[in-house]
Amino acid sequence: MKPLAITMGDPAGIGPEIIAKAFARPRAPGPQWLVIGDAGVIERAIKIVNVPLAVHAMAQVEDARFLPQTIDVLQLPGLNLAHLQLGQISAAAGHAGFEAIRVGIELALAGRVAAVVTAPIHKEALHLAGHHFPGHTEIFAHYTHTPDVAMMLAEGDLRVVHVSTHVSLRKACDCVTRERVLQTIRLGHAACRQLGIASPRIGVAGLNPHASDGGLFGTEERDHIIPAITDARQAGMNVEGPLPPDTFFAKALAGAWDICVAMYHDQGHIPLKMKGFRFDVARGTWSSVSGINVSLGLPIIRTSVDHGTAFDQAGKGTASEESLLSALDYAHRLAASR
Amino acid sequence: MKPLAITMGDPAGIGPEIIAKAFARPRAPGPQWLVIGDAGVIERAIKIVNVPLAVHAMAQVEDARFLPQTIDVLQLPGLNLAHLQLGQISAAAGHAGFEAIRVGIELALAGRVAAVVTAPIHKEALHLAGHHFPGHTEIFAHYTHTPDVAMMLAEGDLRVVHVSTHVSLRKACDCVTRERVLQTIRLGHAACRQLGIASPRIGVAGLNPHASDGGLFGTEERDHIIPAITDARQAGMNVEGPLPPDTFFAKALAGAWDICVAMYHDQGHIPLKMKGFRFDVARGTWSSVSGINVSLGLPIIRTSVDHGTAFDQAGKGTASEESLLSALDYAHRLAASR
Repeated sequence: MKPLAITMGDPAGIGPEIIAKAFARPRAPGPQWLVIGDAGVIERAIKIVNVPLAVHAMAQVEDARFLPQTIDVLQLPGLNLAHLQLGQISAAAGHAGFEAIRVGIELALAGRVAAVVTAPIHKEALHLAGHHFPGHTEIFAHYTHTPDVAMMLAEGDLRVVHVSTHVSLRKACDCVTRERVLQTIRLGHAACRQLGIASPRIGVAGLNPHASDGGLFGTEERDHIIPAITDARQAGMNVEGPLPPDTFFAKALAGAWDICVAMYHDQGHIPLKMKGFRFDVARGTWSSVSGINVSLGLPIIRTSVDHGTAFDQAGKGTASEESLLSALDYAHRLAASR
Repeated sequence: MKPLAITMGDPAGIGPEIIAKAFARPRAPGPQWLVIGDAGVIERAIKIVNVPLAVHAMAQVEDARFLPQTIDVLQLPGLNLAHLQLGQISAAAGHAGFEAIRVGIELALAGRVAAVVTAPIHKEALHLAGHHFPGHTEIFAHYTHTPDVAMMLAEGDLRVVHVSTHVSLRKACDCVTRERVLQTIRLGHAACRQLGIASPRIGVAGLNPHASDGGLFGTEERDHIIPAITDARQAGMNVEGPLPPDTFFAKALAGAWDICVAMYHDQGHIPLKMKGFRFDVARGTWSSVSGINVSLGLPIIRTSVDHGTAFDQAGKGTASEESLLSALDYAHRLAASR
């Protein structure tokens, strides 16, 4: 298997630090890893988190040596990070984060890396740099020319794929069409199969309270979701729904389905973050964040951490690498079945 | 304090059984309880759950004796429960459940009971009986002539009050008005004060993903939610928001706020049920359900269990009385501060 490419994320955030920590961990057998970004940024992160690693800067991924205690970093040209301030939004950092993604996509499309695993970027920095995307998913959709990408979040065995993500709730209602729901079910089914689940159990949430309660609160279940489920069943998929959203996720948490189909961003994100995130009220910070993000429907494999740049934590060396390790593991499992 | 009145719920469901179990539990000091419903139904439930209790049937609540090991039951006239089948939807059961509520409201409005604590009803049975209400809340709103009732759910220290409940998600978006959000904040604030929280910390969720991310996904935050929060702060309330809904509830779970304001039914219900409900996948049933429902804004106090009639469990004596005990406790606390 080709190596997994890790994008460094916004260099002013915690991305480089969690990468250094991940490389410092004992490694299970599996594919090699390399980083796309900036050698100086990774060197600084190694110092911050205080791990015994060195950087090997390279001009192309085929130069990677994969030596022990060494991080192979594909050096992006033309970055301007001499004045980088950790924890600060800047166009230079936004552009560097963006370039790592763009190059990662190119390399994956060319088959030179097996997958792209992304560290967090900061949207404002991205926009300051002139790259007007709402987030990673849209960048991947754009550069791979994929109109229908679905976001899957996973935390342990709880997996949720979304019919829509970064649109207003009103627009999200419009996105609940028979075609789109069916396509999302299909993508979720295929992802589970790639993960080695022979006959995935798929649960589909309703859009409305009580899944509209037989049509009392909304028509989307009757007009779109139920027909999509019927289509999916006729295609041989094991699908249950539409289910009342509130109890659906309490059941999902117990393992009732291999994958859940959520009708909109927060319907899926609220349960995932309640399961994977722990907040420390006294300190006002997250004490742990776990969970990963997988873009389904792309011609390449992309997984990601499910947390942000955490600018307030950058430079402290305290950020957890768990989510990144999960994202690497998912990328490995998905790549292995291709 | 006057007694708390417990409505028996749909007599074909688990309501009567959890009532019998609650009466059989050692009681902390506090107000007396009585039941509104049918003596025969409660007698049968006592046998099913096998507890050493007797029933005292009465024609008016002032006849209650509050003897140990005895359930005082206000006998509703004109019920037709001779052929009642447990676990079956019927008009007779639906009507009996409805009458208990209607009479409970009358008694509370007249100051003859301190609060109404409701056991679950079955909506289809209610409709078969010709009572066309979506649920309890609407019945209470109607008979108390209260246009603005807000549903609060609580499980332990996690409390959520909803801007709207039983409407389609599209209509729920329309319900997010400055006036309505402010009114919901006010009702949540008042409820916390009634519960003895001197200066309630109130968190308000956004409607859209990322709370619209500065206007990128939707306008409701800018046009309605932020102005309502400003109004509430000017009125001296301690309010934070609008917050991105996905991380909002992960923070709320850790105790970041005394009460959360949710913009629609499932935004609040998904977190509450994830916290309070446990599903047993192998048996296909809920192994525990906890959490309660309080109607805010009424001229009377109404609390409720936060689960359904569980017709599949009726007659087995296995349903848990925990949620009912919590609802009684909340009713007591709310009544004590009036």
